[in-house]
Amino acid sequence: MIDPQSILFTDLYQLTMGQVYFREGLAERQVQFDHFFRSYPDYGNHQAGFCVNAGMGWLLDWMETATFGESVLSVLREMRDPVGNLLFSKDYLAYLEEFGSFDRLNIRAIPEGRVVHPNTPLTVVEGPMVAAQLLETALLAMLNYQTLIATRAARIRHAGRSQLMLDFGMRRGHDFGANAGSRAALIGGADFSSNVGMSQYFGIAPRGTHAHSMVQVFLALGMDEIEAFRAYARNYPDQCLLLVDTVDTLNSGVPNAIKVFEELKKKGHKPVGVRLDSGDLAFLSIQTAKMLNTAGFPDVGIALSNNLDELAIWQIITQIQQEASRYGVDADQLVRRLSFGVGTRMITSEGDSSLGGVYKLVAVEDGSDWQPAMKLSDSASKTPNPGKKRVQRLYDHRGNASVDLVSTADESFDVDSDNSVYHPVESSKSRTLKAGDVSRVEDLHCSVFGDGRRLIESEPLELMRERRMSDMERLDPGVLRLVNPHIYHVSLSQPLSQLRADLIAKLRGQRQRR
Amino acid sequence: MIDPQSILFTDLYQLTMGQVYFREGLAERQVQFDHFFRSYPDYGNHQAGFCVNAGMGWLLDWMETATFGESVLSVLREMRDPVGNLLFSKDYLAYLEEFGSFDRLNIRAIPEGRVVHPNTPLTVVEGPMVAAQLLETALLAMLNYQTLIATRAARIRHAGRSQLMLDFGMRRGHDFGANAGSRAALIGGADFSSNVGMSQYFGIAPRGTHAHSMVQVFLALGMDEIEAFRAYARNYPDQCLLLVDTVDTLNSGVPNAIKVFEELKKKGHKPVGVRLDSGDLAFLSIQTAKMLNTAGFPDVGIALSNNLDELAIWQIITQIQQEASRYGVDADQLVRRLSFGVGTRMITSEGDSSLGGVYKLVAVEDGSDWQPAMKLSDSASKTPNPGKKRVQRLYDHRGNASVDLVSTADESFDVDSDNSVYHPVESSKSRTLKAGDVSRVEDLHCSVFGDGRRLIESEPLELMRERRMSDMERLDPGVLRLVNPHIYHVSLSQPLSQLRADLIAKLRGQRQRR
Repeated sequence: MIDPQSILFTDLYQLTMGQVYFREGLAERQVQFDHFFRSYPDYGNHQAGFCVNAGMGWLLDWMETATFGESVLSVLREMRDPVGNLLFSKDYLAYLEEFGSFDRLNIRAIPEGRVVHPNTPLTVVEGPMVAAQLLETALLAMLNYQTLIATRAARIRHAGRSQLMLDFGMRRGHDFGANAGSRAALIGGADFSSNVGMSQYFGIAPRGTHAHSMVQVFLALGMDEIEAFRAYARNYPDQCLLLVDTVDTLNSGVPNAIKVFEELKKKGHKPVGVRLDSGDLAFLSIQTAKMLNTAGFPDVGIALSNNLDELAIWQIITQIQQEASRYGVDADQLVRRLSFGVGTRMITSEGDSSLGGVYKLVAVEDGSDWQPAMKLSDSASKTPNPGKKRVQRLYDHRGNASVDLVSTADESFDVDSDNSVYHPVESSKSRTLKAGDVSRVEDLHCSVFGDGRRLIESEPLELMRERRMSDMERLDPGVLRLVNPHIYHVSLSQPLSQLRADLIAKLRGQRQRR
Repeated sequence: MIDPQSILFTDLYQLTMGQVYFREGLAERQVQFDHFFRSYPDYGNHQAGFCVNAGMGWLLDWMETATFGESVLSVLREMRDPVGNLLFSKDYLAYLEEFGSFDRLNIRAIPEGRVVHPNTPLTVVEGPMVAAQLLETALLAMLNYQTLIATRAARIRHAGRSQLMLDFGMRRGHDFGANAGSRAALIGGADFSSNVGMSQYFGIAPRGTHAHSMVQVFLALGMDEIEAFRAYARNYPDQCLLLVDTVDTLNSGVPNAIKVFEELKKKGHKPVGVRLDSGDLAFLSIQTAKMLNTAGFPDVGIALSNNLDELAIWQIITQIQQEASRYGVDADQLVRRLSFGVGTRMITSEGDSSLGGVYKLVAVEDGSDWQPAMKLSDSASKTPNPGKKRVQRLYDHRGNASVDLVSTADESFDVDSDNSVYHPVESSKSRTLKAGDVSRVEDLHCSVFGDGRRLIESEPLELMRERRMSDMERLDPGVLRLVNPHIYHVSLSQPLSQLRADLIAKLRGQRQRR
């Protein structure tokens, strides 16, 4: 089997470029790479206005296991180019063995769970050229995916009005990527996951109900749905959540569940709820609530599943609010008893299946100085911000986050002066933040790796969740909107905007001279 | 770190339902689950008309490692329900330890690499209820994803007219799911992958070029693009493929590459090519070809990358065919020197990020007999085919695959008689295959696991690729069409169609009586 923990979890060109740097005397040259994304996920008929950062904990785990040990070197020693020559020289492989791992990198990053925005460095990697380059593939595969899914989970939780939300996505995950998906969902918005291994990892209880197959077995053996329900209730009297749509939700499933709940109640147990997994979930929720209320179970929960995402949940809740009273059901009370089991559309981020996060070289050490590095691509919007930078979040007088400000490393923001801040792409566009407009300034980066070791241990789930909830509370409601959200301000400081414009002009000039 | 190889890579309900079966005396009851998908991927503005089956090799690997050893049991022993009682009883855990693993299952499956269609069982799992249920989550996560990606790779290769196609998707994969994505891409259509570990696994050479960062380093240190190219060429004189868009493709990159190629040629090396990664790839290909031709490099390759998928490649080739001659470039010769580096859109199956493959209980042993099992869901199209089945592919007189026929297990198809075959959903719709219409009948299932062990070893990549190429050659061109493909026939035999109709009627009757 393949060992995913190996440093061979990488693109070939990281290793071949490394050899060029080694041969040209650049292997130890200090460089800086920035990891950032250029635009929020756009799911087609709805769009994100913020992202939730995730994945660093697992990248740090991987960095500890990924080394140039003998098993890796023995593979590299045998690799050949198309005409049969050895691909890697002995001295380069000796260099990798001694210096190729990640222990001389310094990494600063925005903590997991925090709300993040485009064109701000989420992760900053500094260190020797070869090692910094080698980190790229794993960093992108791990951070982009988890950030994508944590973002989706946050949106879904928000649409579900923070009602209980369960990650059921494991079976639709991308092979073992499902574990990272569950991790990110739990950071971003899911209260629990059906994924047993991942729940164990975080020290929380996994959650689940039962499948249609359990009812089908009883039916195939000539028994009735209620006998399947009774068997489940016997085994799980204190967590009895019954899937009621195998035969017929309103004519069989819910009436049978109510009988079983009455039996449980007589024995002193509190039934948990029913799960609806097909049909018009809003209509069925209302009818189910009505039947449960009439039977004396007004507190029993109603779990919904089946291709849910933020839009589906939003629509279900809207429909309940419009129609419940017509059936004598209190809409708000019904919404408070709902929970949501969310799978495919969360764990694959259906509609936008990748976060376009990139890892770009932004600075190279030159003597005692750093040279900003840029790729002069065709569009100004794709041109990354050069050099070493600082990222600060500015809060307004209400305490809401209003601007993420990217500046050069040695600037500081004075809240008591007027400050001009610049559009991240069009350097001619600026606006002024008046003295007193900004109530608080917060640095977003923390050191996570340095001095040869990780500087943060595996973080508790609760801590990452608290960051997410706290950051989301400090967003304007318009930024949280599911469709066409308000655009959060990401701005450049005057010196950084100037540096960027100068560098573009310089590179364009070089290009014209050739 | 989490161990993805553990049997805890599962949904909680597989374990809790298992306890119900154990407690009710059904743990050892023989059952059959079918794995199938209901519809081809639909990417929005284009649609698949076939899928390429993949993933079984890795599922079999996982089954060998996933057992109820002490590390797993110690986790399960401590799990509690919401009121604090132990979730799993000692006798159930003892049963899992002795019988919970997968070694008593029998699995038949359509081999990896073969073309497959909706509503036909790709995988059939038979065995004791608990073990068969426990396999569900891993089976779906592994088989659905690889089938999704192998399908996408096959389409992309087809659009690229079988020109060299490279998987560059690793960094956009879903965490370690990237390895499964590369595996599936290599089975489905990619010739090579940049993924070093996965290439090593299959015993093929990984491939790659270099990144923009390599050129940027030289620029930041005051050198020119050509010095970066020369450094690369010095290290890789026989595999020199240069990325030419860091500064300016036509005014800097290609002219510099040509100079370096001339230097290589003088030293007796054959330059490989240039890579274009931004801009109008069709226009730039033509201009680049013209410059390379003029400089005496008519055979040097042109590799394209940047958000490619089947539609993008189709359009690039179409545009080249329309415009190349205007610039004095032979379109066909240009297309033959193209290769494609494909990333995000392949490895995440952008546009349709999950294959809706399901794992449904279809039969339960009852005494010496088998009872078909069905879930009577709301739509007839979602109702799976009941009972034990046989899947045969019928070929027409041209040797093309014309029908995948699902029948009951003991039927055989007589090519010398007229045969009525039925619509898979609407049992009133049938058509007749006349005697002689069918030239050949092929059973699609092979035994892959039984007698306590896997029955196929890790299969060579070439074998799986040959199956794919051979099957694709025997599809009507309309089925291969990228947009609105012709619908391939999946049919039921008369006895299976009748069984299905009878069972639906019986279940509907039961439902009405309640």
